[in-house]
Amino acid sequence: MAKLDYKQAGVDYDKIDPLKILAQQAAAATAGNLQRHGLHEVPASRGESAYVVDCGDFYLASITECLGTKALVADATRAITGRTYYDQIAQDTIAMAINDLITVGATPISVHAYWAAGGSEWFADTERARDLVAGWKAACDACSVSWGGGETPALAGVVVNDRIDLAASCTGLVRPKSRLTLGDQLQAGDQIVLLASSGIHANGVSLARKLAERLPAGYGTRLPSGALFGEALLAPTTLYSPVTEALAAAGIVPHYCANVTGHGWRKLMRHPATLTYRFHTLPDVPEVLQFLQQQTGSDAREAYGNLNMGAGFALYVAAADAQRTVEIAAKAGVRAWIAGVVEAGNKQVVIEPLGLTFGGGDLHVRA
Amino acid sequence: MAKLDYKQAGVDYDKIDPLKILAQQAAAATAGNLQRHGLHEVPASRGESAYVVDCGDFYLASITECLGTKALVADATRAITGRTYYDQIAQDTIAMAINDLITVGATPISVHAYWAAGGSEWFADTERARDLVAGWKAACDACSVSWGGGETPALAGVVVNDRIDLAASCTGLVRPKSRLTLGDQLQAGDQIVLLASSGIHANGVSLARKLAERLPAGYGTRLPSGALFGEALLAPTTLYSPVTEALAAAGIVPHYCANVTGHGWRKLMRHPATLTYRFHTLPDVPEVLQFLQQQTGSDAREAYGNLNMGAGFALYVAAADAQRTVEIAAKAGVRAWIAGVVEAGNKQVVIEPLGLTFGGGDLHVRA
Repeated sequence: MAKLDYKQAGVDYDKIDPLKILAQQAAAATAGNLQRHGLHEVPASRGESAYVVDCGDFYLASITECLGTKALVADATRAITGRTYYDQIAQDTIAMAINDLITVGATPISVHAYWAAGGSEWFADTERARDLVAGWKAACDACSVSWGGGETPALAGVVVNDRIDLAASCTGLVRPKSRLTLGDQLQAGDQIVLLASSGIHANGVSLARKLAERLPAGYGTRLPSGALFGEALLAPTTLYSPVTEALAAAGIVPHYCANVTGHGWRKLMRHPATLTYRFHTLPDVPEVLQFLQQQTGSDAREAYGNLNMGAGFALYVAAADAQRTVEIAAKAGVRAWIAGVVEAGNKQVVIEPLGLTFGGGDLHVRA
Repeated sequence: MAKLDYKQAGVDYDKIDPLKILAQQAAAATAGNLQRHGLHEVPASRGESAYVVDCGDFYLASITECLGTKALVADATRAITGRTYYDQIAQDTIAMAINDLITVGATPISVHAYWAAGGSEWFADTERARDLVAGWKAACDACSVSWGGGETPALAGVVVNDRIDLAASCTGLVRPKSRLTLGDQLQAGDQIVLLASSGIHANGVSLARKLAERLPAGYGTRLPSGALFGEALLAPTTLYSPVTEALAAAGIVPHYCANVTGHGWRKLMRHPATLTYRFHTLPDVPEVLQFLQQQTGSDAREAYGNLNMGAGFALYVAAADAQRTVEIAAKAGVRAWIAGVVEAGNKQVVIEPLGLTFGGGDLHVRA
């Protein structure tokens, strides 16, 4: 089978990133507006996964995140099995926001739903709508956040007919302020604890969809374990806030956190410092990601550079806290590994078991 | 010309509202999750335009809002005039979020952008992208908020090719807590000050689009003043936070606020109390709304029940504050009228100059 890569799959980061950088620069120039309210931003949060404002006694953190195209996988797999999977992609959507928000040390407080449908008819499918609502509520409960409200527009002509654009915004508080984890403590000698992913999460889905188009049985293709490709893709994204809240309760403040999303393991060098992140241990790779790598003819560089490959979230902690971090994560129901170490050196991610290195130039997420 | 109504225009509130109510009930059931963080919600904010959490020394307010289909008007009018108008619809999008957030008495602090395009190519149109960024920044500056970040996904298959789904989320603080305006002070004898709209804002756009399809010259149709229909529709939504912040600075706390969006003047009885809202004075109706009413063959009930008809925002204030409220609004650049009064009586909006009454059953925005 011919190779499939990201540009063929319709995601061209070269085209998105220049606009993103323009927007980041304009956004940064609005920071001074906060002075009028006696507040100021935390500049180091610019370019991080959530935005942080210093409000005196506490920090305010906020984020808006999109599910991406995973609803298309749910729709297609429903045609095979009859289940809607909207409970599961509801969890994915909330995970996109929550897992980003917690990287700064915030406790998620409230979530807003953004469900933009291709027309009013979308909402008339009661089974699908009920699953979406039930899954959204369950994910809020799992993260101990309040679902504050949302927006359910019908956008014929903007959103494709019978499709839905799902997104979530989340607001959180960093209290006490010592919980802030923007990486100023990050240093050589820190250990990197990786938290297990449940599967593809919501990044790499465009590639998976292209692959499904090429497979004779599409989403109905059986993986070696017997699972359907579509259902394996739809395993809901792990929610990591129970882990970060349990760490806070135990008095462990990570030096830095990274949510592994677009750009895969390249995100592990997201922090602006010039440091080397050297990995000696790899998490188990979920079957669906093994299948995706193999079927798209991707090498390790492409796979680890774009997919989570079993690592959904990274905690950079003081060496003395590493083992306890793994144990606390396990107790919160998430498998974890002391997988690597932070070293002085060039900005790079070195994955020793694979003989693979990503240099600093391989990641362009900052202005 | 045959009549055009909302169902023909693709917005069927009967289909959306049952899901909305289901979601509102599930959302309300998550409030208890806040106890774990030592916080609690302000129950009266459920069903209001922004969600409010009591954080002890302050209230936290949050909201996510969608532009709707107005980008389609910009795209079509660009084909006639060559201007993109994305600076203007950027302001509209921020206005949707800010104008809702301030109804609870919050000072808007940070905004996140949600720009979901039909494909990466969308972002390669530099002129349009620059206008979007410039307009977004200018609106943030006008509202003294910080643009904290955002999401720019490429969603081929979910968003229509070469289109964009624009939304904004906003977080704010109510400080001091006495600024909270959820309507517990609302009472018979309060005066209703209406703030001028700039045009259609972003509600009623589906109807306007249907009309454009039927007009021989479409968005290029000249209004009596000579303005193009498309450009008149694209007058950016007024940002009302400079007014509410100026009122706070002057020590005026409204008893209640309503942002006039979908459901038009029916929104003026949004508050759950059983009260009558009697209007004796009507704002000037923007030319584009006069044209829309006339060309769609809508009667006053349909027009005032769905469009803002010149009233973009309503402040319900103590009678003693009404005249100063008008003056402060004018000083902040927004025309205002003491237009009506709150009375004991059935839940209804009575528009005396039109001989028109909306009963409580005409509005279904709450669970």
